Amino acid sequence: MTNSAPFPVYPHRHLLGIAGLNVPDILCLLDRADEAVALSRQREKKKSVFRGLTQINLFFEASTRTQASFELAGKRLGADVMNMSVASSSVKKGETLIDTAMTLNAMRPDILVIRHQAAGAAALLSQKVGCAVINAGDGAHEHPTQALLDALTIRRAKGRFDGLTVAICGDVLHSRVARSNIILLNTMGAHVRVVGPSTLMPAGIEHMGVDVHTSMETGLKDVDVVMMLRLQRERMAGAFVPSIREYFRHFGLDAQKLSLAKPDALVMHPGPMNRGVEIASEIADGPQSVIEEQVEMGVAARMAVMEALLDPAKNNGGAL
Amino acid sequence: MTNSAPFPVYPHRHLLGIAGLNVPDILCLLDRADEAVALSRQREKKKSVFRGLTQINLFFEASTRTQASFELAGKRLGADVMNMSVASSSVKKGETLIDTAMTLNAMRPDILVIRHQAAGAAALLSQKVGCAVINAGDGAHEHPTQALLDALTIRRAKGRFDGLTVAICGDVLHSRVARSNIILLNTMGAHVRVVGPSTLMPAGIEHMGVDVHTSMETGLKDVDVVMMLRLQRERMAGAFVPSIREYFRHFGLDAQKLSLAKPDALVMHPGPMNRGVEIASEIADGPQSVIEEQVEMGVAARMAVMEALLDPAKNNGGAL
Amino acid sequence: MTNSAPFPVYPHRHLLGIAGLNVPDILCLLDRADEAVALSRQREKKKSVFRGLTQINLFFEASTRTQASFELAGKRLGADVMNMSVASSSVKKGETLIDTAMTLNAMRPDILVIRHQAAGAAALLSQKVGCAVINAGDGAHEHPTQALLDALTIRRAKGRFDGLTVAICGDVLHSRVARSNIILLNTMGAHVRVVGPSTLMPAGIEHMGVDVHTSMETGLKDVDVVMMLRLQRERMAGAFVPSIREYFRHFGLDAQKLSLAKPDALVMHPGPMNRGVEIASEIADGPQSVIEEQVEMGVAARMAVMEALLDPAKNNGGAL
Repeated sequence: MTNSAPFPVYPHRHLLGIAGLNVPDILCLLDRADEAVALSRQREKKKSVFRGLTQINLFFEASTRTQASFELAGKRLGADVMNMSVASSSVKKGETLIDTAMTLNAMRPDILVIRHQAAGAAALLSQKVGCAVINAGDGAHEHPTQALLDALTIRRAKGRFDGLTVAICGDVLHSRVARSNIILLNTMGAHVRVVGPSTLMPAGIEHMGVDVHTSMETGLKDVDVVMMLRLQRERMAGAFVPSIREYFRHFGLDAQKLSLAKPDALVMHPGPMNRGVEIASEIADGPQSVIEEQVEMGVAARMAVMEALLDPAKNNGGAL
Repeated sequence: MTNSAPFPVYPHRHLLGIAGLNVPDILCLLDRADEAVALSRQREKKKSVFRGLTQINLFFEASTRTQASFELAGKRLGADVMNMSVASSSVKKGETLIDTAMTLNAMRPDILVIRHQAAGAAALLSQKVGCAVINAGDGAHEHPTQALLDALTIRRAKGRFDGLTVAICGDVLHSRVARSNIILLNTMGAHVRVVGPSTLMPAGIEHMGVDVHTSMETGLKDVDVVMMLRLQRERMAGAFVPSIREYFRHFGLDAQKLSLAKPDALVMHPGPMNRGVEIASEIADGPQSVIEEQVEMGVAARMAVMEALLDPAKNNGGAL
Repeated sequence: MTNSAPFPVYPHRHLLGIAGLNVPDILCLLDRADEAVALSRQREKKKSVFRGLTQINLFFEASTRTQASFELAGKRLGADVMNMSVASSSVKKGETLIDTAMTLNAMRPDILVIRHQAAGAAALLSQKVGCAVINAGDGAHEHPTQALLDALTIRRAKGRFDGLTVAICGDVLHSRVARSNIILLNTMGAHVRVVGPSTLMPAGIEHMGVDVHTSMETGLKDVDVVMMLRLQRERMAGAFVPSIREYFRHFGLDAQKLSLAKPDALVMHPGPMNRGVEIASEIADGPQSVIEEQVEMGVAARMAVMEALLDPAKNNGGAL
């Protein structure tokens, strides 16, 4: 499944991945997201631009926080939001995904937010429906709104991407968050390192424009941002997984390892955290942590994406 | 449980079944539904007529698509919609149905949409509550909004009911969809055939004004509409069920069987489909299929019903 | 966990329990609730005061009716309401409660309604978040909105609290409803009796300003209100539980026992009822029962609490 031409066939545009976005696209989305942050900090944190529009959140994998973030984003834009959680146990592969999507499409939504365990699910859907599709995570492929909210968090703290060094640490192998962040950060001119045990590194990762480190000691040296990944124990069938204690000792972020990074380095995590596994509680709750701000940026980034997809007039020149 | 006097006791009117509706009632609902289709095809697909009204969807049987259809219908009319899914395992028969309903009734809803596994549940409820009740399927009894959306789909394609021949095919025995469609189509002057194995025919079906066929070859001959039913395997305890392969060979709709119908015959299915069981994929996705349009008509038909129940002023002369 | 200083640290005020409220607080809330009842009996039962505000219902224990009541209350005030049901099985004690709450808090809600199986959960949360917290039941500690709706029901029927005698009957040991009601009714000048088997009485209950009765015969004598509690069989691990038949014979409310109360005594139950266990069906559905009115008052009381918390200007002088 290629992502190289994300909006070619249908009049509606989609956000299937970070791949395919250029610098102006990303900057446009981040600027819109800054506006959405300001809105969400007011007492009346709602616009009417999406009044009468229908947003459907179609989640084949449970994800309370991501679904909640998209739900609030839609409601704050004034849309009617409907959640559809489809237990994966009752789903029988591709055909049912399509039947479900076609059914929902016939109800004339304007936006379909999809999370699915299969890479490429969102792209497949986007070829079948007559509305904007947003990929809220498809297998180990992409999770573009996560990368955008991370970028927003970084830009608000650091003011730039150019020249920053970002370490993405942990279970890179199973992480769509890592993939989307690597693509975005590379596009924006940051240096990206991936840090983790070699058993949790995808083959060929070094061709994605990153430096590969198998120790935190070298990987965190002088970085501006430490981005921890959730240890996806449920996806680790077949991989070698060290014991939790061993994992934390070597790759968990604690004060000692963090001291190798720049003194003002940001600590990030997409959540939900496994405290004591990939991150120590004192670091998660410490002064360098922007983990809660990431959540706030999530609502704003999703508002920005939805507005950009449905309001082309405000979106001069960008591909999105 | 009789349906013969659906609105006698309470000031609010209900839609408990197609039985009791006359030709003007049905035409009025279909005309309203056509308007709702037009609304739902606009960018701002929302009215304010139900602003401040409360709709509760009370589902004792899981049904993602029907609940979603009612939810969107209510939201597009401007209502506040609340979903209540009650796991049937935690429900202990009639008394709890009534206690649950009385509790919800005390919250002053305007519309209560109910799906329940027991025939007569909606009628029972309607005698207890002070709001409009819509039957969204009660056991093997009725599913009136499904019949209305099917009628809307047929009328938009064929322009009339009079003189049409409609074949309803498959598991007629367990199907409230079949019952409601038979009553509606007979009322509107269509000829109805039921087609299926004799083990899946209810006793006395021939007294409902239909022709009974036990082979697709005779049943589909020259019909204008082929309406397939879902094989309700979960309801078949005790009935003789042939193997899936055998069932498909004899009663699944494929190109060869469809060729017996008129060349412009519509292919319909209430969904969700068992592809390769009661219908071949190539037919479900083929040019004669209006299965997705049925879903779209579902939202519109439900909007029409809700408006008619709560807005008597616009409803001159009809019983509903 | 103390409740003695409920609003000291944060600019937002909370409703963590009845403890801490004084007479003017309670009267102010009941007056507001009377207005909300009037609103909910209109066709357009909705205000715009909470337009653009976000309410999150965070339920760690399933409670269909309480969640529904809060949901409708918020929607009728014009808020955007989001439900988050967190299966207790996937929750690992305190830390996850806090992580979940901090995540939601970062989404900038205005109101967080929480139900949790641990006493003190709401108070703990209120120290961590930047929005108003409403306790919707925390373990066996408090359930303040239930006590307020009960008080509203009593005041609308009896016109006063002073001089009334209220019998709270059944499983007092496990009941947060009983605790909150005892505190409120004592504050308002009513006499409170608790009635039940000694095995279902908390140690030291006599120091809460109540008369303790271990038989219904003495406990119900000449009371103005009979408030039955749900037999919380799921919480009774370790306690001595008599057989249902024995329990009903001694402590179930039937016509004979009710005849000991004043002829115009109210019969109340917080629901859901175990008919034939703590209350006979004929009494639950009889002329003295105000059980359904309690449900209606529930929506109104919750609207009143939310308005009071977020609209200090209208709330002259009270602590809340």
